[in-house]
Amino acid sequence: MKTAKGKKQNRAAQRKPVRPAPKKTDTKFVYSFDEIRLAERAAGSWDGVRGLLGGKGANLAEMTKLKLPVPPGFMVTTEACNAFLAAGGKVPKGMWEQVLKAVAALERVTGKKFGDTANPLLVSCRSGAKFSMPGMMDTVLNIGLNDEVAAGLARLTGDERFAFDAYRRLVQMYATVVLDVPAKPFEALLDRYRTRRGVWNDAELPAEDLKAVTAEFKQIVEEHAHRPFPMDALEQLRLATMAVFRSWNGKRAHDYRKAAGIPHDLGTAVNVVAMVFGNLGADSGTGVATTRNVTTGENELEGDFLMNAQGEDVVAGTRKTLPIAELERLMPRADKELKRIARILEQHYREVQDIEFTIERGKLWMLQTRDAKRTAQAAVRLAVDLAKEKLISKEEAVRRVRPEHVDYFLHPQLDPAARSAARDKGALIATGLNVSPGAAIGQIVFDADAAEHWAQRLNKKVILVRPETRPDDVHGMLAAQGVVTSRGGRTSHAALVARQFGIPTVVGVVSLEIDIERRQMRTAGGQVLKEGDWLTIDGGTGEVFAGEVETVVPDVTDPYLVELLSWADRFRRLGVWTNADYPRDAERARNFGAEGIGLCRTEHMFFEADRLPVVQSMILARSAEERAGHLAQLLPMQRADFVGLFKAMDGLPVTIRLIDPPLHEFLPNRDELQKAITELETRLRLKDGDAAALEAELRAKRKLFDSVEAMREQNPMLGLRGVRLGIHMPELVRMQMRAIIEAACACAKKGIKLKPKIMIPLASTSNELKVQRALLEEEARAVLKEQRMKVPYQFGTMIEVPRAALIADRIAEYAEFFSFGTNDLTQTTFGISRDDAETGFLSEYLHKGILERNPFATLDQTGVGQLMEIGVKLGRQRRKGLEIGICGEHGGDPASIAFCHRAGLDYVSCSPFRVPVARLAAAHAALDGTKDRR
Amino acid sequence: MKTAKGKKQNRAAQRKPVRPAPKKTDTKFVYSFDEIRLAERAAGSWDGVRGLLGGKGANLAEMTKLKLPVPPGFMVTTEACNAFLAAGGKVPKGMWEQVLKAVAALERVTGKKFGDTANPLLVSCRSGAKFSMPGMMDTVLNIGLNDEVAAGLARLTGDERFAFDAYRRLVQMYATVVLDVPAKPFEALLDRYRTRRGVWNDAELPAEDLKAVTAEFKQIVEEHAHRPFPMDALEQLRLATMAVFRSWNGKRAHDYRKAAGIPHDLGTAVNVVAMVFGNLGADSGTGVATTRNVTTGENELEGDFLMNAQGEDVVAGTRKTLPIAELERLMPRADKELKRIARILEQHYREVQDIEFTIERGKLWMLQTRDAKRTAQAAVRLAVDLAKEKLISKEEAVRRVRPEHVDYFLHPQLDPAARSAARDKGALIATGLNVSPGAAIGQIVFDADAAEHWAQRLNKKVILVRPETRPDDVHGMLAAQGVVTSRGGRTSHAALVARQFGIPTVVGVVSLEIDIERRQMRTAGGQVLKEGDWLTIDGGTGEVFAGEVETVVPDVTDPYLVELLSWADRFRRLGVWTNADYPRDAERARNFGAEGIGLCRTEHMFFEADRLPVVQSMILARSAEERAGHLAQLLPMQRADFVGLFKAMDGLPVTIRLIDPPLHEFLPNRDELQKAITELETRLRLKDGDAAALEAELRAKRKLFDSVEAMREQNPMLGLRGVRLGIHMPELVRMQMRAIIEAACACAKKGIKLKPKIMIPLASTSNELKVQRALLEEEARAVLKEQRMKVPYQFGTMIEVPRAALIADRIAEYAEFFSFGTNDLTQTTFGISRDDAETGFLSEYLHKGILERNPFATLDQTGVGQLMEIGVKLGRQRRKGLEIGICGEHGGDPASIAFCHRAGLDYVSCSPFRVPVARLAAAHAALDGTKDRR
Repeated sequence: MKTAKGKKQNRAAQRKPVRPAPKKTDTKFVYSFDEIRLAERAAGSWDGVRGLLGGKGANLAEMTKLKLPVPPGFMVTTEACNAFLAAGGKVPKGMWEQVLKAVAALERVTGKKFGDTANPLLVSCRSGAKFSMPGMMDTVLNIGLNDEVAAGLARLTGDERFAFDAYRRLVQMYATVVLDVPAKPFEALLDRYRTRRGVWNDAELPAEDLKAVTAEFKQIVEEHAHRPFPMDALEQLRLATMAVFRSWNGKRAHDYRKAAGIPHDLGTAVNVVAMVFGNLGADSGTGVATTRNVTTGENELEGDFLMNAQGEDVVAGTRKTLPIAELERLMPRADKELKRIARILEQHYREVQDIEFTIERGKLWMLQTRDAKRTAQAAVRLAVDLAKEKLISKEEAVRRVRPEHVDYFLHPQLDPAARSAARDKGALIATGLNVSPGAAIGQIVFDADAAEHWAQRLNKKVILVRPETRPDDVHGMLAAQGVVTSRGGRTSHAALVARQFGIPTVVGVVSLEIDIERRQMRTAGGQVLKEGDWLTIDGGTGEVFAGEVETVVPDVTDPYLVELLSWADRFRRLGVWTNADYPRDAERARNFGAEGIGLCRTEHMFFEADRLPVVQSMILARSAEERAGHLAQLLPMQRADFVGLFKAMDGLPVTIRLIDPPLHEFLPNRDELQKAITELETRLRLKDGDAAALEAELRAKRKLFDSVEAMREQNPMLGLRGVRLGIHMPELVRMQMRAIIEAACACAKKGIKLKPKIMIPLASTSNELKVQRALLEEEARAVLKEQRMKVPYQFGTMIEVPRAALIADRIAEYAEFFSFGTNDLTQTTFGISRDDAETGFLSEYLHKGILERNPFATLDQTGVGQLMEIGVKLGRQRRKGLEIGICGEHGGDPASIAFCHRAGLDYVSCSPFRVPVARLAAAHAALDGTKDRR
Repeated sequence: MKTAKGKKQNRAAQRKPVRPAPKKTDTKFVYSFDEIRLAERAAGSWDGVRGLLGGKGANLAEMTKLKLPVPPGFMVTTEACNAFLAAGGKVPKGMWEQVLKAVAALERVTGKKFGDTANPLLVSCRSGAKFSMPGMMDTVLNIGLNDEVAAGLARLTGDERFAFDAYRRLVQMYATVVLDVPAKPFEALLDRYRTRRGVWNDAELPAEDLKAVTAEFKQIVEEHAHRPFPMDALEQLRLATMAVFRSWNGKRAHDYRKAAGIPHDLGTAVNVVAMVFGNLGADSGTGVATTRNVTTGENELEGDFLMNAQGEDVVAGTRKTLPIAELERLMPRADKELKRIARILEQHYREVQDIEFTIERGKLWMLQTRDAKRTAQAAVRLAVDLAKEKLISKEEAVRRVRPEHVDYFLHPQLDPAARSAARDKGALIATGLNVSPGAAIGQIVFDADAAEHWAQRLNKKVILVRPETRPDDVHGMLAAQGVVTSRGGRTSHAALVARQFGIPTVVGVVSLEIDIERRQMRTAGGQVLKEGDWLTIDGGTGEVFAGEVETVVPDVTDPYLVELLSWADRFRRLGVWTNADYPRDAERARNFGAEGIGLCRTEHMFFEADRLPVVQSMILARSAEERAGHLAQLLPMQRADFVGLFKAMDGLPVTIRLIDPPLHEFLPNRDELQKAITELETRLRLKDGDAAALEAELRAKRKLFDSVEAMREQNPMLGLRGVRLGIHMPELVRMQMRAIIEAACACAKKGIKLKPKIMIPLASTSNELKVQRALLEEEARAVLKEQRMKVPYQFGTMIEVPRAALIADRIAEYAEFFSFGTNDLTQTTFGISRDDAETGFLSEYLHKGILERNPFATLDQTGVGQLMEIGVKLGRQRRKGLEIGICGEHGGDPASIAFCHRAGLDYVSCSPFRVPVARLAAAHAALDGTKDRR
């Protein structure tokens, strides 16, 4: 009943609403704290109890059951609230009678009485919904005070200041919460008194002032609300209860629920609790704590307290709090009790608790307990510790750590306090797409060469800022701490490269006007930043700050994380592979736990500075011999690439995708050529310069332009690429195949274990595969014959257009493995060009709620997923046990990984920096798989 | 058994091969012409009989059964052939014995004897496969002649010339066919004799020459084949039979079968027929005829004959033939007999026959009959006539007319003879994509304005030749007889407009180098054509001819065609609608039989010259008010468009698609702007002209360029278009909706019956439809309220991306009808951009056989069709009886229409000029639907 509580919140949306039953007069609307067993019977489960009584109340009752020191009290149910709201603000029949009985019981237990001047009962009246909505609803403290009772309390405690301070607080809260009187006149009045006394703090006001303040407060109430502050305690309670009910539909609460995805029909409960006071002297105090350190995860109480103070004072921050460790020295008995209770609570809830307590004249009272929020770092350590202490199982520990917790360890992070401060002072100058997490600080540079120069020669930290990046910017990106682009989407060149290398990056920052010529950029707010100015970015949130914002650097070798992931590995069924193009990526990914390479994009190698000219010449070759010459130059380079990969992945599978992008991506920029031509033409016409020289240059440019133009496509995404290219220019893929097999032979000779998997991209018919595979096998056989060796290899294909999925049985005829290329599959299934859409209508769709999620970030299970399921079914129908993976960006996304698990894939492949995240997500998928949650 | 013969050929591929059974010695390998009933028993069906005995033999046997005068003879089966080939050239056991028996029988029947000098039996030995392979296999005539028999024959006929002419023919044919002696030495020898005698024709050579020739021929045989010409008649027959068998695997026959799609394992039969001679004097002759006129379809014998000649002479064309009508005068008895036989054959085969006959001394012999090939015009008339004569049913008449026959009536056509002649003389200068059928002749012009000017002012016929066309070229296209572009695919702008208006057009003629500046174009062969030169194009074949090629103009109001289509309408289930943007298209389509508009592309109206500037200003508007102003200008124009359509389609459904293409299609050309900017920048730098003026112009151009650039997309096909645009710029579709409903109200007031169907394009999620429909309905309600009227209207969507089909149930929630946009659906399902691919890798794929058919011409049933089936199923699952159509180019393609019928669509919508074709194809689909042919 009490395990797996972390998940309850997630299932909020599925919960059946607690509907009011206003006609049934015998409905139990009020439960005292010691009636939790009755509530359990009524509500059926712990989840039901929380729904009925609210989280706060349910936990107070639970603590009462555990015989922990909770002040007596009772709860009015959410059912009562819903009935009240449904009836347009009418308390349901029988409720008030039950409240009166509960008050009477409270009087019996405490020996105090409402309105009794000799021994008055004071209570708090607080909202308490099923899910915590911090600060979103209302509270009234000190109910029960009136002129006489306040005087009596002063006598009883011998502390007039205390009594009238409590009274004026009641009047103030009552006025604002119940009667909607604005807060301002009260504050102004207090301010006047403080000024008069020359003090900073209300606590320093003498009793007589507080008495006078209270009287004036009551006048303010009467002026604004046109009725007096009620002197009757029960009337105070009745109106406060109704105000709490009403607060459920307040704008603040409504907006919060909308943002947090909490249903609007849950209603709030009302908690009525006998007041205890931490401000009754040096043996009193109040505090908040977590049962362990929720920042670091260390096993020690963490929190703050104040001597002789009320709870609000801790929160308000008007007095400096003491660390909880001090409690042992100052109040050793209370400290011991607190630690005992913390242990009991952790044992009971099997989770670290966030508690509130008050010490009234030496006696410790528990006012709240709930599961504690925590940092990513703490989440990991707490999960591991609790499992080792056998409080929870290892499965549960794995479940409790969220993928974003793991991600945290992989990148530098902005210091949370520094981030808030930067936001507050207006340093947040723009926001874009959060495509590659981590924080980065550096000086702005506006081109790749400058980035490299500043970083390597001048030893500066730089942020590369560009309208967009191109393959020849990669050296600058690698030299930079982070990258910002004003254009491009989640899968733009910048985004892909950034994720590949774990470079913190924000793209599509459309509000930045970048002026490369003038080496500056202008923000939407009109601020101008120049080259060399400092910039801080958060690739995890998409924020861009002017100036330097402090960062913290977590560590992926954190022993707790390592242990937790090793547990995750035990539970998952999905393999976790990586997308890696270079040996250095492969090594990193392997360190992160990758079990193979699911995608090596061979064309990335073509963009390297020393190769691009050869590649261009090869593409533009006018004859087969000329092309063969250039390919011969590329062969040893590609071979060396593969040797490096095979070495790095010794013993693990390496999937190599043959060239995929359209050839014009490698060619010079068409616009620039056109500009150059027009300029030359104009100069020639105006006779500016030597005509012969101009003409010669013009001829050369025109020739190049014509070649580029001939390869230009309307929709390159749907053009001559992938296997189409392999069929169109067979000598190119032959070279690649030769490089693979020659590399394999060289490695095999050195005892490296390998099994290259050759992946043919973008097939939409089985004939393409048939033809291409035959060609490649011919080349492979030729190489093996030359080398007099045998090495195993496999052919497979990417399923990345709908037709391939729809005819997967025919495709499987020629493919020994499948890998879903879900980036392209999403583009073609939706008919959406991600490059254009992500900074365009797609963000409009997300904003307008037409799409719930960006389908390029989280797999669209309904459409794309359906095709994947068809593909898996047909593929395995033709070829039993066909190995199937995914190598789109979705391979690193937890929700998509869960789908891949359910769809029966064998592995996911993601960028190196997502590997640890994927390991955890895959374990979650397997653990959740026991019940089908589709 | 004998009906529906037209279809047998189609099913060749499905036929089980007749496998040889060489071990079974009791296999019957030889059938005499009067044994057809035995063959029927053995083969089981008429199709089987043709398979076993070959088409020619089966028909000869069939005529024998009909007691028509067929020379006696027998057939060696295809089984024997297959056994022979399978055994590596060994005659199967028992075959030869059966041949000998058949020869003996032949001798009995004819009273002649092989090798008998007094009364010799001569036979022909001919191949005869199941399907006619004209000229592809071999024939040996006059078998049975040798030195003695020839002398005997000379005595017997009293015609030495005849006897030795027959003998030398045997030697010559035997040598080339059986012994593979080259033909050249024989021809050379004859040539020598002709020269010596000073004659042109072998027939003029005297007997003594032919005797000498024969002798020399035999020497040539011996020299080349190293063995003598055999004197034994049976040996001649044996070797000739084996040669015919072998010819089945000859290169010529193999290539022909490959091209014609005839299976290679059918084998050929051998027909051995007693010779009859048409060259025995003035009472002899030979001829070919069709039982009706297969050019016009008129009910009269049509053909040619020669008096005193052999069959070869008719075919060789060395003597001028006489029209068959002359036969009545020259040989009235034979003519009467021929007409009687023609009637019997038509009655028997229920089809017009193509026959060969010989008259030997007054007696008519039938040598061949087969179904006659015919022109499109004749096909239609023959089908109608035969049905009216009750020879065939109306269903059968509809089946017999092929869609391309109907298409013929819609467009001018090249005269076949003139086309051949033009090809022969090298006038065929290029070939491109045949995107809009019909022939056109005109003078070349290189721009749209010139086209209009020449055509309208100078009253010239022009062909517009452009690298590609853009919306502002339409006036030139409409003024031209035909259009040629060097770029663009089957669905390029030029192709779409051309089909829309029935303009004969060839696009993607990549071999033409068009030089607009110099007003000329260069062919691959180096020929240069200048503006004003004459050009002839055939949009049905994609051929481009230099000069004028004669055309013929058929007529769509041909009464036979009208009647046939009215029968077709009775049989079809599919509705036939049309894609029409303008009232004039709608009217034409309605005349052609369209039953509704399935697609009106509203954006085409935006391209009209008077509207484009308003549209551009609207798109570039900087504020909502500014945009509203431009939209207000467009509203009355759009309203008028719709009024026109509703009037034209009174009583029929009109489907109006809201704006679909990306907005940048309406904007000025980006390249030109960039050029202008660069030029201005250069001039400014070089101080060429007034700096202030240049700067002002530069600013204006830059501003426009920036706007165009901001709307530019990497892959516009997958970009901001369709419903995405409607959501992004709601005021635009609101204007369109207002125009539709206002037009509907105006028409309804005039008593026009209408039901506008508003079609929302490119939805990939149901939310898009939900949101867009709500917006449009709001506008519609507002208009109806203003007008105080009610008119019915419906909302539907195009299913044109895979996801829409996959979630069709959700889509149907908001769509009251579906229309499959199979152009885009094919693009997205394959991941192929048709614009780029059709002149690129797609043609490579078709050429290499990777794709069997262009999926943009004929629907890909396996992939795209699968999605359509899913869409139909899910759509109707959600909304019972949901109306579903297709409006892609495939809606006019017969094979695709057949699929649409089977998939359960309600209608197809195609361009006006395809409507009659679609009506017939839909009837075919329904008639074929009785058996499922999938």
